[in-house]
Amino acid sequence: MSCAYEAALLKAWEGQNDSAHDIAHIRRVWDNCKALSDASTDTEVLYAACIFHDLVNLPKDAPNRAEASRLSAVAAAPLLAKLGLPDAKLPAVQHAIEAHSYSAGIPPETPEARILQDADRLDALGAIGIARMFAICGALGRQLYDPEDPLAERRPLDDTLYAIDHFETKLFRLPETMNTAKGIALAQERCAYMRAFRDALLAS
Amino acid sequence: MSCAYEAALLKAWEGQNDSAHDIAHIRRVWDNCKALSDASTDTEVLYAACIFHDLVNLPKDAPNRAEASRLSAVAAAPLLAKLGLPDAKLPAVQHAIEAHSYSAGIPPETPEARILQDADRLDALGAIGIARMFAICGALGRQLYDPEDPLAERRPLDDTLYAIDHFETKLFRLPETMNTAKGIALAQERCAYMRAFRDALLAS
Repeated sequence: MSCAYEAALLKAWEGQNDSAHDIAHIRRVWDNCKALSDASTDTEVLYAACIFHDLVNLPKDAPNRAEASRLSAVAAAPLLAKLGLPDAKLPAVQHAIEAHSYSAGIPPETPEARILQDADRLDALGAIGIARMFAICGALGRQLYDPEDPLAERRPLDDTLYAIDHFETKLFRLPETMNTAKGIALAQERCAYMRAFRDALLAS
Repeated sequence: MSCAYEAALLKAWEGQNDSAHDIAHIRRVWDNCKALSDASTDTEVLYAACIFHDLVNLPKDAPNRAEASRLSAVAAAPLLAKLGLPDAKLPAVQHAIEAHSYSAGIPPETPEARILQDADRLDALGAIGIARMFAICGALGRQLYDPEDPLAERRPLDDTLYAIDHFETKLFRLPETMNTAKGIALAQERCAYMRAFRDALLAS
């Protein structure tokens, strides 16, 4: 794949500082994309969509966060033209970018959009998902957990207050949202890892 | 133990917002203190020192951070007098507060100071240590790891840039700084957990 794509992303991201959405995230998602691809995948579409899926990167607590993937798809168009992506492939790339987002709620309609969505969700799970979740919690000044009721047995879940509530509000539900058989299997494995981590954390 | 101590701490901390140094941290450190105590421990001294050990809580990247434990010991004195701590016990409490800090470099000279130091360091290790480390990384806008060289095989370690460098610069060295036999054993166990987590993270 081409360094020109990464360079274009990094230029667009200049001045940003997000521990959970950085070039390392993009590269992990691309590794996941490759693991979920097969011979029928349009690699050019998938790669372009993967590189630019977080081009417009709004904070987790921004009110218009559900718009980020649509804004990314729009902002990617001129960059992709410059990078030489054939015009005919632009709609497929833009669809995969738009549909990758959990909060946008757009169903993925192509194999590449389904793969990118799974690949991005996998990066929220397992050990890397744990690291990213707590980095976001620290950046937003949230508590790690509720010391009075860490598992929310006597209160509603609230991941805007407590980081580990996010396991139940979102992360443990991701396996059932996955599109590909490989994605489902990996997501389940990574959720099991996170459950064991949560047990260890609360036993500390 | 007395809720009045916790209430005094929370009042002093008003307006602070630190995911890694909060009342849940204080309670975990107190649990560790109890696990490391024996019949000879002065529980009143240990509890008072535990509650106020982070009374003055400077950010990880503050230039005067090494002073925080000395400032906490000074600031604790009037609070402890109000809370009814016998005057004769104040020096022992202040010594334990001053000596708990890694960056202050003050050797702990009493059993209570040794226990508090171990108890606080244990909270930097294991699953809870991982959660706190990444929360601090996010709050300071640091990267999770260096995507080009995550294990620093071809560059110097730098935990001001990369969160996981902190495993090698500090956390994996904590077992050899522990004072108590139980503390050493628990620290080694928690470091093994962190090593396995790092492996899982970099395999993601």
